[in-house]
Amino acid sequence: MSNHTLFIKNANQVITLHGNSTKPLKKKEMNELHIIEGGSILIIDDRIAAIGNETDLVEKYKNEIEEAEVIDAEGKIVLPGLVDPHTHLVFAGSREEEFNMRLNGATYMEIMNNGGGIHATTSKTREASPDELLKESKKRLDSFLMHGVTTVEAKSGYGLDWETEEKQLRVAKQLNEEHLVDVVSTFMGAHAVPAAYKNNPDEFVDLVINEMLPKVAGEKLAEFNDVFCERGVFTPEQSRRILKAGKELGLIPKIHADEIEPYEGAELAAEVGAISADHLLRASDEGIKRMAENNVIGVLLPGTAFFLMAESAKGRRMIDMGMSIALSTDCNPGSSPTTSLPLMMNLACMHMGLTPAEAIAAATINAAHAINRGHEIGSIEVDKKADITIMDVSNYMKLQYHYGVNHTDTVIKNGHIVVKGGKLC
Amino acid sequence: MSNHTLFIKNANQVITLHGNSTKPLKKKEMNELHIIEGGSILIIDDRIAAIGNETDLVEKYKNEIEEAEVIDAEGKIVLPGLVDPHTHLVFAGSREEEFNMRLNGATYMEIMNNGGGIHATTSKTREASPDELLKESKKRLDSFLMHGVTTVEAKSGYGLDWETEEKQLRVAKQLNEEHLVDVVSTFMGAHAVPAAYKNNPDEFVDLVINEMLPKVAGEKLAEFNDVFCERGVFTPEQSRRILKAGKELGLIPKIHADEIEPYEGAELAAEVGAISADHLLRASDEGIKRMAENNVIGVLLPGTAFFLMAESAKGRRMIDMGMSIALSTDCNPGSSPTTSLPLMMNLACMHMGLTPAEAIAAATINAAHAINRGHEIGSIEVDKKADITIMDVSNYMKLQYHYGVNHTDTVIKNGHIVVKGGKLC
Ligand SMILES: [Zn+2]
Ligand SMILES: [Zn+2]
Repeated sequence: MSNHTLFIKNANQVITLHGNSTKPLKKKEMNELHIIEGGSILIIDDRIAAIGNETDLVEKYKNEIEEAEVIDAEGKIVLPGLVDPHTHLVFAGSREEEFNMRLNGATYMEIMNNGGGIHATTSKTREASPDELLKESKKRLDSFLMHGVTTVEAKSGYGLDWETEEKQLRVAKQLNEEHLVDVVSTFMGAHAVPAAYKNNPDEFVDLVINEMLPKVAGEKLAEFNDVFCERGVFTPEQSRRILKAGKELGLIPKIHADEIEPYEGAELAAEVGAISADHLLRASDEGIKRMAENNVIGVLLPGTAFFLMAESAKGRRMIDMGMSIALSTDCNPGSSPTTSLPLMMNLACMHMGLTPAEAIAAATINAAHAINRGHEIGSIEVDKKADITIMDVSNYMKLQYHYGVNHTDTVIKNGHIVVKGGKLC
Repeated sequence: MSNHTLFIKNANQVITLHGNSTKPLKKKEMNELHIIEGGSILIIDDRIAAIGNETDLVEKYKNEIEEAEVIDAEGKIVLPGLVDPHTHLVFAGSREEEFNMRLNGATYMEIMNNGGGIHATTSKTREASPDELLKESKKRLDSFLMHGVTTVEAKSGYGLDWETEEKQLRVAKQLNEEHLVDVVSTFMGAHAVPAAYKNNPDEFVDLVINEMLPKVAGEKLAEFNDVFCERGVFTPEQSRRILKAGKELGLIPKIHADEIEPYEGAELAAEVGAISADHLLRASDEGIKRMAENNVIGVLLPGTAFFLMAESAKGRRMIDMGMSIALSTDCNPGSSPTTSLPLMMNLACMHMGLTPAEAIAAATINAAHAINRGHEIGSIEVDKKADITIMDVSNYMKLQYHYGVNHTDTVIKNGHIVVKGGKLC
C-alpha cells in the first residue's frame, strides 16, 4: 500500500521552533522561532518527512511530491499544531447563570447559596453518563481543533469520589481514541475537599493516596498527578504527600499553585520535581527563582485571570528570571469557559507583556514539554508527528496584532487535513 | 414579481431589544433585552414583517411562510445585526512591527524614529490608490460580517490634507454601495496636527473649518464630524470651533474625548450636543454627569485600552450614573487592529463590569443610536431593516461566558442570508 503524502508549499513563514525537542525554551530562546521564509513541508503518513525550500524538496523527493496532496499556503503562516497543557475538559453542565449573577453584583455567598461554585459542576458530573460526558467534551474538542489546537491535556477532579474520577479518566481515554485531538490525562482527585471531609481533610488526602492513586497508576488511567495547593483547599504539606505518593507510582507531578495568595506552591513544585506549576498569579520571587533553577515549567492561564477579573501572572518577569513559560486556556466551566488558545496568546501579550514570538513558543513547544511531549510534538522538525496549523496571517506578529480573531485556516492532524477554511472537514 | 421571504423559527431566544427606537437605553433599561423564548421572525424583502411564536405567525401569514426560505435556529439565539459605531476602517498598511517593538521593550521615541505612529498610516494612506484602499477595507468588512456586524461607522483622518481625506470618504461611500455591510461616514480631518502645522495648529484648524468642512457638507461626503480632543492634539477650544462649524453645516458632532488624560472632552461633548463622546478613559465624574444629562452616548472602546495595556473606561460607573453606553472595536492599525465586536462585548464585561445583557444592548441598539440609526437598525422590530445575526449559543449569557470565541453562525443582511456556518456565502 502506498503512503499518504501531503506537501505544504509557498508559506509566507514556516515557524519551526526547530532544535528544542529535548528541553523547554528559556529566556531569549523563547523569542526565537526559527522561521523559514517561503518554506515548504513534506509529510509522509503521520510524520514530517522534510522541511526546506520548494526547489530543494522537489529535487530530493520528486516522486513523493508528485503524488502528494498539495496545500498552497501563500500569504499564510505555518505553525506546529497548538498544544493546550491544562484543561478540565471532561465535565457536565455550564455555569453562565453564576457568571451573570456575579456581573449583576451578587456576592460570593449569594452565588453559593444559589447552587454555584465547583460543587455545581461536581454534582452534574457525578450524575452524567459517560456518553453524555463524551458528547459534551467532543464539542469542546471540535472547538479547540477549529482554533488550531491538536493536543489537549485533560484533568479529572470533578468527582472527588473514585467512581466519578474514574469515569472522567475513562472518558478522557475514549476521547483520545475517538476524537482527532490527542487527549493527555491527568488525575486530579485533590481538586477540592468534598463536603463530607470538610472537618477531616487529611482523611480525604489519605483516601487519594491509599485508594485512588494506586488504581490510577495500576490501570494506567493518567500520566500526571495534580493537586490544588491553596489556602482553604490543600496545604503545601498535604500537597507534598499527594505529589510524592503519585511520583512513587510513576505519575509525574503537576500543581495548581499560588493562584489566590502566595502559599509556597512554586517552592513545592521545585522541591518535588513537578514538570509544571500552573496559575502562579501570586508566586513569590523566591518561588520563581527556584522553579527556574529546577526547570519547572510555568503554565500560565491568562484567561482565568481575565474571566475572574484578577491581575495576571507576571509572565514577563518569570521569563526574565529564567523560567520556561507555557500557555493554556484552563478550559473549565467555573473560571475559564473558553476554547480559544489563540486568545490566550493575545492575553499573554497584552496582560503579561510577552512578545508575539514568546506567546507562540509558549503555546507550542513549551506547552508540549509541559505535558512531556516535547520529543513528539510542538515544533516542525523531521520525524515529529505531522500536527500542523496554518493561520491566515502574513507573518507571525499578526497573530497577536490582529487580536481577538481566530485566524486558523487549515489544521493537519497525523498528516491529514481535518480543518479547511476554518471549519471541520 | 413576488417578494423574497425568509422565516426564522425555533430560536432558543430572540433578543429583540424592542421598544427603543427613539432613544438610547439608559441605566436599568440596558439590562433588559426583551427576549422571546422560542421565537420566530418573518422577513419580507429587506424588512422585518412579524415577530412572535411560530403558531401565531403561521396562522397569520400562511401564504408568506409557505413559500419562505426557512432557517431553523434551534439551540441558537437571534440578535439584531451588530453595529460598530466607531472605526477607522479605510486605511493602508499595517503596523505589527511597531507593536512587536513595543512588546520587545522599545521606547516611544525608538518606535517613532523607526517610522511608527499615526504618521506611518498617514503616509501609506496618502500613497494608496482608491482601489487599494477599497480592496483592503473590503477584507476588513468581510471579517466584520463574519463576526455578526452588519453596520459599521468609518472615519476619515489618515489624510490630514483634503485630497486624502476626500479619497477616504469617497472610498467609504463606495464601500457602502459595493459591500454588504452598511458603511456610515464621519469626517475627521482633525485627527492629528500635520507636521507642517506643528507650530501653527490654529492655522490647520482654520483649514479644516474654512476649506474642508464646507466641501464635506456640500458634497454630502459624511454625516458626522469628529475631532481628537487631547493634550498635544487639539485643545477643547479648537475642538469646540471645529464641532460648532460642522454643526452649522449639518454635520452631527462626535468627539474623541479624555482618552489619555482628563481634558474636559466629556464636558465639551455635552456643551456642543455631540451625539457621542468616544474613548472616555479619563472622563471626570462631572463630565459623566453632564453627558448623562445631555444624552451624549458614551462609545467605549475596550479593545483600545486592551491593546495599549491601559486601564479601561469606567463603563459600570457610567451606566450607574445614567449614561447610555455603546461599544465599538475602534478598528485601526495603531491602537486597535481588530475586527471582533464580539470580543469587545467580552472585554466590556471583564474589564468594565458590564453585565452580559448590557454588553449586548451596547453593541446593538445603543450603537445604532450613536450613529443616528436607532429608527432603522439595532433592534428586532416590525418594519425595521432585516439585519439579523444568529449566534450558536443556547442563551445570550453564553456570548460573554464562553468568551473569546466567535459564535456567529448566520448573518442576514437586508433580508438575505450572507453568512452561513460562520462563513461568507
Ligand atoms: Zn486548573
Ligand atoms: Zn478613534
